[in-house]
Amino acid sequence: MRFGYFVLAFGLVLLSSAAEAQSKLPNVLVISGGDIGANIDPLRSWNDGKAKHSIVEFVEKVTTPGSPDFVPVPERIAVFDNDGTLWCEQPLPVQLYFALDRVKMLAPQHPEWKTQEPFASLLKGELKTAAAGGERAVLELLMATHSGMTTVEFEQIVKEWIATAKHPKTGKPYTEMVYQPMLELLDYLRANGFKTFIVSGGGIEFMRTWTEQVYGIAPEQVVGSSIKTKFEMRDGKPVLVRLPELNFNDDQGGKPVGINRHIGRRPIAAFGNSRGDQEMLEYTQGGSGARFELLVLHDDALREFAYGPARGLPDTKVGTFSPDVLAKANERNWTVISMKADWKRVFAFEK
Amino acid sequence: MRFGYFVLAFGLVLLSSAAEAQSKLPNVLVISGGDIGANIDPLRSWNDGKAKHSIVEFVEKVTTPGSPDFVPVPERIAVFDNDGTLWCEQPLPVQLYFALDRVKMLAPQHPEWKTQEPFASLLKGELKTAAAGGERAVLELLMATHSGMTTVEFEQIVKEWIATAKHPKTGKPYTEMVYQPMLELLDYLRANGFKTFIVSGGGIEFMRTWTEQVYGIAPEQVVGSSIKTKFEMRDGKPVLVRLPELNFNDDQGGKPVGINRHIGRRPIAAFGNSRGDQEMLEYTQGGSGARFELLVLHDDALREFAYGPARGLPDTKVGTFSPDVLAKANERNWTVISMKADWKRVFAFEK
Repeated sequence: MRFGYFVLAFGLVLLSSAAEAQSKLPNVLVISGGDIGANIDPLRSWNDGKAKHSIVEFVEKVTTPGSPDFVPVPERIAVFDNDGTLWCEQPLPVQLYFALDRVKMLAPQHPEWKTQEPFASLLKGELKTAAAGGERAVLELLMATHSGMTTVEFEQIVKEWIATAKHPKTGKPYTEMVYQPMLELLDYLRANGFKTFIVSGGGIEFMRTWTEQVYGIAPEQVVGSSIKTKFEMRDGKPVLVRLPELNFNDDQGGKPVGINRHIGRRPIAAFGNSRGDQEMLEYTQGGSGARFELLVLHDDALREFAYGPARGLPDTKVGTFSPDVLAKANERNWTVISMKADWKRVFAFEK
Repeated sequence: MRFGYFVLAFGLVLLSSAAEAQSKLPNVLVISGGDIGANIDPLRSWNDGKAKHSIVEFVEKVTTPGSPDFVPVPERIAVFDNDGTLWCEQPLPVQLYFALDRVKMLAPQHPEWKTQEPFASLLKGELKTAAAGGERAVLELLMATHSGMTTVEFEQIVKEWIATAKHPKTGKPYTEMVYQPMLELLDYLRANGFKTFIVSGGGIEFMRTWTEQVYGIAPEQVVGSSIKTKFEMRDGKPVLVRLPELNFNDDQGGKPVGINRHIGRRPIAAFGNSRGDQEMLEYTQGGSGARFELLVLHDDALREFAYGPARGLPDTKVGTFSPDVLAKANERNWTVISMKADWKRVFAFEK
């Protein structure tokens, strides 16, 4: 996880009143149907339009034998950012809610947190004060909540949390806050011989506990940020202990590095939504042959949230001085999808 | 790559006269057949015996529906060390030959190497003198030969080298110095729903250039040591540049760490040959349910090389003070295969 990312997420709390004004969430919506019965369109939650057509056109040309753009199955690698691309990252990224809940859960064992920042403020629910501690505060928060246990113990902790935690606005489990059109896209690509990977700034071990069930993406196809681990024998049992030290920051220029390290092939398709994904899309586009890059624009305040470039703001994962990733998308001819215009439905529970 | 590993490899040069005395290589052998015609034994290069039976027994119990040891397909993860487990690592590990050839190739651009160690000794063919420089010398050798270029350039360099380089004793391409019984084992496991991974102390990007062709193991299923890389735009093109800095040492306790990072699941079967593989086998064994661990014992001086525990020596990848991995295998009930007794044929070119 990128510290700057979480710092920004904290920072977003400051913008939350504005964001909330634009956010009227899906549980108050009635979505008109249209994809009923014998409709076998694999991308049935996508409206017909340029974005959907560009996806289908790409898949057809790389999978048609004899086509000049044909790509053999083993090279059909597609990479997806997670937060904001496959599932909702508002009002805060999900993993940050996990960290906050962990602070509450661990507080009884840490009486010193009552006076120690950022924990004192977090325990009082004062996120703005906590966020004032900057990167150092976020680092302390992450290490206090994500390290010290074995990898098996951590997996269990995440599994228990994700099974019960609820999104603060919709009251839905976070695993239902995934974008239905993207689930269809994952299936569609796999049905066409693609291998789908997640490449996210989020914690690799946090994501792996549920990606297979939710996205059909196996643990070995998840790339993410990580802390260091150490092999140890504990009571004669071999374990990996999670250390309070960052190992890899899978964001921005780190994404191509992570892709190369874990996948070892340049993807032919990449899907993202923010500044953190720019280098991944550039790296994908830089290969020879047919390539596809797509950026999800969060412009649907009614069904999800409107934020980042869609609101004329820098996107969530950058400081205020970074260039707008939307301008980069236009400059590089990436496909930009409007959640509002291109998606019939955002979440599965809308129907 | 583990520095100690290469230092030891250099050290082995000192033992080479003894090793050579025991090594009479396969090109002088006539192997009696027996696996001709309608024989469809997937492990046809394995002699009947305890080792082969233990493999088949394990695979049958984890793949038989209803068996108490049944393992679902996605969890059938098998990990293989490479050097000495899948291909020959004598008289020196193959990647070290690559480094030495790179020194010769790059020497014209480095006139200073004529007087600078370890390069001066290496260029004169005096490996013993070069090895005297210890870890520092090996680090210099690796960084001088493996970094500075882009990942795409490095891939091309390795591909060209491996297509033409020959094993110093057999005169065969290194990609033919792979163990036929292990190729059959890889196929047998995959035919039974296993996903096969390499987990090696060797360089991840060195191996990936040929593992798919030689072993049927895709780049994303190769875990290895690595140096750091950095994303850059060069002449408007996105590239990853290989930096002269170690990123990860995938050996000993590093192997479970690498497995967890890349695969995210505990393997149910692990195959190795040396001290470098001990923790990987322990970690595999430490999971619940049916598990299988195997150690290749290099005791066949006639068809390959006799070294390590088979000769009463510490194995190749440890300092002289490390415990014998063979003793560990007996203590932990790992399957030990004797190359001499358990393999009908070592290399495919023997027939």
